[in-house]
Amino acid sequence: MPCAPVIANAGETAPWRALVNGREQGVVGIADRGLLYGDGLFETIAVRRQAPCRWSAHLARLNRGADRLCIPRVDPTLLRTEADALLAGVDQGVLRLTLTRGKGGRGYRPPANPTPTRILAVYPSPPFHDEPSISGVALTFCRARLGDNPLLAGIKHLNRLEQVLARAEWDDPGIIDGLMADNRGCVICGTMTNLFLVQGEGLTTPRLARCGVAGTVRELVLERARALGIPLIERDVRTEELYRARGLFVTNAVLGLMSVARLGTRGYDTSAVPTALIEQVQQAVFEPETQT
Amino acid sequence: MPCAPVIANAGETAPWRALVNGREQGVVGIADRGLLYGDGLFETIAVRRQAPCRWSAHLARLNRGADRLCIPRVDPTLLRTEADALLAGVDQGVLRLTLTRGKGGRGYRPPANPTPTRILAVYPSPPFHDEPSISGVALTFCRARLGDNPLLAGIKHLNRLEQVLARAEWDDPGIIDGLMADNRGCVICGTMTNLFLVQGEGLTTPRLARCGVAGTVRELVLERARALGIPLIERDVRTEELYRARGLFVTNAVLGLMSVARLGTRGYDTSAVPTALIEQVQQAVFEPETQT
Repeated sequence: MPCAPVIANAGETAPWRALVNGREQGVVGIADRGLLYGDGLFETIAVRRQAPCRWSAHLARLNRGADRLCIPRVDPTLLRTEADALLAGVDQGVLRLTLTRGKGGRGYRPPANPTPTRILAVYPSPPFHDEPSISGVALTFCRARLGDNPLLAGIKHLNRLEQVLARAEWDDPGIIDGLMADNRGCVICGTMTNLFLVQGEGLTTPRLARCGVAGTVRELVLERARALGIPLIERDVRTEELYRARGLFVTNAVLGLMSVARLGTRGYDTSAVPTALIEQVQQAVFEPETQT
Repeated sequence: MPCAPVIANAGETAPWRALVNGREQGVVGIADRGLLYGDGLFETIAVRRQAPCRWSAHLARLNRGADRLCIPRVDPTLLRTEADALLAGVDQGVLRLTLTRGKGGRGYRPPANPTPTRILAVYPSPPFHDEPSISGVALTFCRARLGDNPLLAGIKHLNRLEQVLARAEWDDPGIIDGLMADNRGCVICGTMTNLFLVQGEGLTTPRLARCGVAGTVRELVLERARALGIPLIERDVRTEELYRARGLFVTNAVLGLMSVARLGTRGYDTSAVPTALIEQVQQAVFEPETQT
């Protein structure tokens, strides 16, 4: 990648506190496969009023990822107890939950009986996080492509160099995310968001069978659109279609649903995104999920 | 992936000693981008008589990777001084050198002025390491594919889930490595080796423009074949070609050059690999490179 000009980083983030395997500490062993090979998974979870938002959805995706990679699932009660301990006193923030295969094995070969490492860390919210509904965001289109790998598609694993390289392509703080295409010229998602197109009276979102992360808010949009009777299809989307769409929106777990005002030089009508959908999604995204 | 049956791991590896940013310790911070995103690089280096073998070649590849990812290069004198301190008293072993982008940035966005983390750790050699020249090894062919990404191709970065999943496909300790193809049906490399085909009087090795790691021993083979007048071409290799080749060999920095006796059920004549090439490569691979 062409190295970006050196500018100051606005608001670098360091965790407020962290638990590693239940102990208050900020380090992991250098033999951890998460560090050696990116052999693990993570979740980025909005925090409101001392509780994680959409905890069940995040846990479900983590478990799908663990099953795919043959990393043992972690006891959900233990995870939730640790999350609650960590989030005590946190009114608003971001919880990152990381699960690695732990140490062991020989080279790439995974150990037969892995003891996963779990890391829970709570961070301040990003600066643009306070707005109740972020509307009219700007996107760019990244040159970096996503490689196809059906075995890794959909899950939120720790191999994120493609996103890091893509995110290094722009400095403009007014651009919230960059869209990425695969090698076939299909647009897949943003570096940190999922993408939806408003086409005619319905919605389209890229299929994630070969690459991309299946976001928890993406899933929520699929569910709410169905409930609201808004037609929504998942399929391959050619990048050219973006410029013909009536509207666009992007989603993630920390920012919710953001309608797009601009992609590169193309402007979009933000009112093309159904208001009822925005309201229902935004409300659900930031609802703290207290323990039952 | 279908989870493998639980069997005991023969000879799990833990480092004998390690230096993290020059300090004798075995941990890194959880905010290190190497752990968060696999945002970094590594080298696996054979150690003989207290010195790293082919140090210059490893350092050159590390620097190429650092330039590609816009991670600042580390002072080579510092790295070598640390390696020598770590390898004191180690007659034979494996040195893993890891360089991450360190901490900082916001989400995927890399920090503008990264302070890389360097980790040097020395491990015992793998069990089959004692044989002076490993001949007649067996390979399998993995179902897991390599995704295309020209930005990441060739460099030895920390995003290695594809190799982890591929390596989990077999348990047979008699199989030394598994070959991997890309999504176009071209064979690229093994999970931990580069591949060469003996075809007619010459050699062919897969082109690594879209995926795969450009091994230091691969480079050595290219150089020695040229010096010996053995025709060698780099090009796309269809997987079907493997079965028509006169011979095969694989290479890596810890095991050197290994002629292949079997790939799946197909046997190969190990004498098809030019003896002079094997000898020259094996000698160079395990020559400790003392400081000049």
